[in-house]
Amino acid sequence: MKRFLNSRETLVDQAIDGFLASSAGSGLARLDSGPGARVVLRADADIRANPGRAEVAIVSGGGSGHEPAHAGFVGPGMLSAAVCGDIFASPPVDAVLSAILAVTGSAGCLLVIKNYTGDRLNFGLAAERARGLGLAVETVIVGDDIALPGQANPRGLAGTLFVHRIAGLMAEQGRPLAEIAEAARAVAADTASIGLSLSDVDAYSGRSEDSSRLGPDQVELGLGIHGEPGAETLAMADADALMARASDRLQRALPDKTSGLALLLNNLGRVPPIEMSLLLDAFRRTPLAQRVELVIGPAPLMTSLDMNGFSLSVLTLTHDRREALTTPCRVAAWPGACPLAAPRTVPAPTLPDAVPPRASEDAGRRALILRGVRLLQEFEAPINAIDARIGDGDTGSTFAQAGRTVAAAIDRLPLADDAALFAAFGQILSQSAGGSSGVLLSILFTAAAQAQQREPGPAAALRAGLERMKAHGGAQAGDRTMIDALEPALDALAAGGTPSQAAGAARAGADATRSMAAGAGRARYVPGDALRDVPDPGAEAIARLFEGLA
Amino acid sequence: MKRFLNSRETLVDQAIDGFLASSAGSGLARLDSGPGARVVLRADADIRANPGRAEVAIVSGGGSGHEPAHAGFVGPGMLSAAVCGDIFASPPVDAVLSAILAVTGSAGCLLVIKNYTGDRLNFGLAAERARGLGLAVETVIVGDDIALPGQANPRGLAGTLFVHRIAGLMAEQGRPLAEIAEAARAVAADTASIGLSLSDVDAYSGRSEDSSRLGPDQVELGLGIHGEPGAETLAMADADALMARASDRLQRALPDKTSGLALLLNNLGRVPPIEMSLLLDAFRRTPLAQRVELVIGPAPLMTSLDMNGFSLSVLTLTHDRREALTTPCRVAAWPGACPLAAPRTVPAPTLPDAVPPRASEDAGRRALILRGVRLLQEFEAPINAIDARIGDGDTGSTFAQAGRTVAAAIDRLPLADDAALFAAFGQILSQSAGGSSGVLLSILFTAAAQAQQREPGPAAALRAGLERMKAHGGAQAGDRTMIDALEPALDALAAGGTPSQAAGAARAGADATRSMAAGAGRARYVPGDALRDVPDPGAEAIARLFEGLA
Repeated sequence: MKRFLNSRETLVDQAIDGFLASSAGSGLARLDSGPGARVVLRADADIRANPGRAEVAIVSGGGSGHEPAHAGFVGPGMLSAAVCGDIFASPPVDAVLSAILAVTGSAGCLLVIKNYTGDRLNFGLAAERARGLGLAVETVIVGDDIALPGQANPRGLAGTLFVHRIAGLMAEQGRPLAEIAEAARAVAADTASIGLSLSDVDAYSGRSEDSSRLGPDQVELGLGIHGEPGAETLAMADADALMARASDRLQRALPDKTSGLALLLNNLGRVPPIEMSLLLDAFRRTPLAQRVELVIGPAPLMTSLDMNGFSLSVLTLTHDRREALTTPCRVAAWPGACPLAAPRTVPAPTLPDAVPPRASEDAGRRALILRGVRLLQEFEAPINAIDARIGDGDTGSTFAQAGRTVAAAIDRLPLADDAALFAAFGQILSQSAGGSSGVLLSILFTAAAQAQQREPGPAAALRAGLERMKAHGGAQAGDRTMIDALEPALDALAAGGTPSQAAGAARAGADATRSMAAGAGRARYVPGDALRDVPDPGAEAIARLFEGLA
Repeated sequence: MKRFLNSRETLVDQAIDGFLASSAGSGLARLDSGPGARVVLRADADIRANPGRAEVAIVSGGGSGHEPAHAGFVGPGMLSAAVCGDIFASPPVDAVLSAILAVTGSAGCLLVIKNYTGDRLNFGLAAERARGLGLAVETVIVGDDIALPGQANPRGLAGTLFVHRIAGLMAEQGRPLAEIAEAARAVAADTASIGLSLSDVDAYSGRSEDSSRLGPDQVELGLGIHGEPGAETLAMADADALMARASDRLQRALPDKTSGLALLLNNLGRVPPIEMSLLLDAFRRTPLAQRVELVIGPAPLMTSLDMNGFSLSVLTLTHDRREALTTPCRVAAWPGACPLAAPRTVPAPTLPDAVPPRASEDAGRRALILRGVRLLQEFEAPINAIDARIGDGDTGSTFAQAGRTVAAAIDRLPLADDAALFAAFGQILSQSAGGSSGVLLSILFTAAAQAQQREPGPAAALRAGLERMKAHGGAQAGDRTMIDALEPALDALAAGGTPSQAAGAARAGADATRSMAAGAGRARYVPGDALRDVPDPGAEAIARLFEGLA
């Protein structure tokens, strides 16, 4: 499996340095403590630099591979420091102790520990050693996983972040250690999480995708964040069905309380953002959604490297917890909580009618238009044949179809009013002509309708419309497009030339495309040799139209 | 390839609804305009609800699959509305026109268009139609891709977001349309981007991973965001080497200016957060980093579904652009800019010495300890043999190794001071004993050292230490661990019992583990049948130690 990596040994240190390089505004630093001891801390929480600091320190951490947890949650109102182990491995005791010593003053320190043996022991021993040095240290163990019912020591998952935020805010508010520890333990007890993934995780093994333990139609429910197998293997299903399973499992683990819940929707690693939004929409269709008041995410919060899955965590809300979760927080990786709401809609504006209503008659215009429409039908086949040599052979049909649509609407057209007629052509071409050329001609006529106000005549207005078409389409004269016939013809008319002078100019322009390289449009992808001596079919159609009308 | 999806047809609408459900605090809504017309807008920018609004509207959009672009960037200081097409397909003209009509008042509207034919034409025609309705509409085309040198119409990539932010802030500041459009065009002209990916993209084709056009050792440089092939195929290499290639390619496309650059590091879809941080660290080692002042990201900003790649975008900074990028912004998906900085370090605290310095002599203690050490060596092999029946056969060696380390340190130990001696044991065991049991015993002795201050004697202090060990380790009596021997033995001693009473209690406890199910530790993963009649090796070792010492 291809991954961005220099070496597994340098990954964690380099990623921490990259994280700090992008967080210069956040006042973060790392302890300069040699290899293996990776501690990210708030520089302003450093008790050596700020010995009078009276806030309780909140310290967490664990194995790496769960980014942004935990270093990404260091900052005001969340963690004072994060201790980062190797990938999926608990940090050593001395690293935890260094973190505690760096940020713990007279107010003491709370360690937030995910319930894994390594973390419990290493953070636990560091706590005892810090106590031995006279510091007030409390611990809270988070075991929010509900995948294995009756498990005495459930795993710590993304629900840990509820503890970070609530304890962190209490610390910022100057609350005492005992109160924060009690609140943190209560939050941990009232949090439940479950994960679901379409893939297992690859901890930079160099293996191929095929060596996944999951078959192509298998999904795991109730998995950990270190590649542990799920509690259950499910059949692959659509997003609604998978979310329903996860939500149901979570709901069955909750006490039947009337109070509201906060939901944290966590990207376990590599679910694209569009699918994370889809998953929240799917969650809204599960019964549990009725009990959810606040939502945090969807976001990558406690990832498991490249796992293609999500986790749901819920916390029973109280007044204080609701307040804490909805208080704005400056930590970039924490998305904050907002009400889980039905999407708000506002009425769409009324669009102008397809054809302006005020039809008017002008016999000369009517005849001219209908002759043009007939010409487009007559050369449908030959233009298609030219296009077939360098493209998909439909240019003639595109023009002919546009003509048929105009003919069908002829009695509703404002024939006596140039500006209105151009606007009507613009509308008709945008709605019925296929391909880019229909939209391009629609732009020309729509812009010409406006230009008609300020230009001396219809030819000048169409010439101004052509400029807008060129601006929006990006092609210029000489790029081997219909512009090469259209621009000289309109130039001739706008300069007072006769229809046959315009037709001559269009013909010369179309013929010139036989030796042009393609600068725009589909023909750019055709080898130059294939284009030789073939005119651009759009330019050829324009030239034939002008010739026929003249 | 397994993906979270209900159907390709419903994906975009459901994802928009999910996005809005998680953004209730942001004042966003969608136009209620039927299928296919997907517009997300700021409700407060709705000109129907707020006809006096005098800010220029900023509207962007394009195909979906690039989330958070573009709906995620709707909000104060960025977009007024985003128009979302199908996956990788331009939205229809009417949808763009609806968006313009919904948010454009007397101040006019700027359309920010990525340079793809479909977007240029559909947004372009919508602009012309809106002008026809009397609205002031300007357009800016962003073509920041530098992968194909000399390309007349380079693609629009993540650099588009520079335009969103700078134009959006100017609109919020009340600047006039002409000025914003001019600034936006200048930003677009001064932006350059390049992408690199380890994978191509799968637009929900249902294909298998194996059908990628990239071989297992291939990487693409200079790719688009819709699955277009890269300009160049490279050999897979480490992250530093790949980043160096991308950065070099970008640098060669830049004019050699002295002014600083802003860098935007974009996750193209499914790069795990730890690797995105690693990539920024890798970028810091490229020559181009010397010219970068500000960094935005790493973050998913303009993704390409599940692409396993990144893109770099740079903008030449001016005073105004620097101000705009560093001004705080309330749009959640916009990470803001901060100085690209070397990671800040602070000195690590000094940890207490491994062995407290004040050695002291007590002949009785010395003899007792050395006898214990000898006993641990004697039953190394038999305890290993017991462990081998249910585990990895090293429990005896772990205890024996701990003993050897204590013996080696005996002349430096504070033998005459119980508290200091327990602390020293705690230090030695944490640093030299392997496995969980070493850390657990270290916790016991470290906590006992503190308990010695308040407890009536060393047995009571050790008993208190045992309680801390249980709290941190999570095991209780009856869980089939060494606690089953240790707790009754320490209880006996603390109650004034003789060493042989303690030994008897330890033996009874160890024997009782023969019929226990495992409640903690590795033995939890061993089938119950295999455990029958085998004592827990840790409890057995403790019992033999107490028996030998008695």
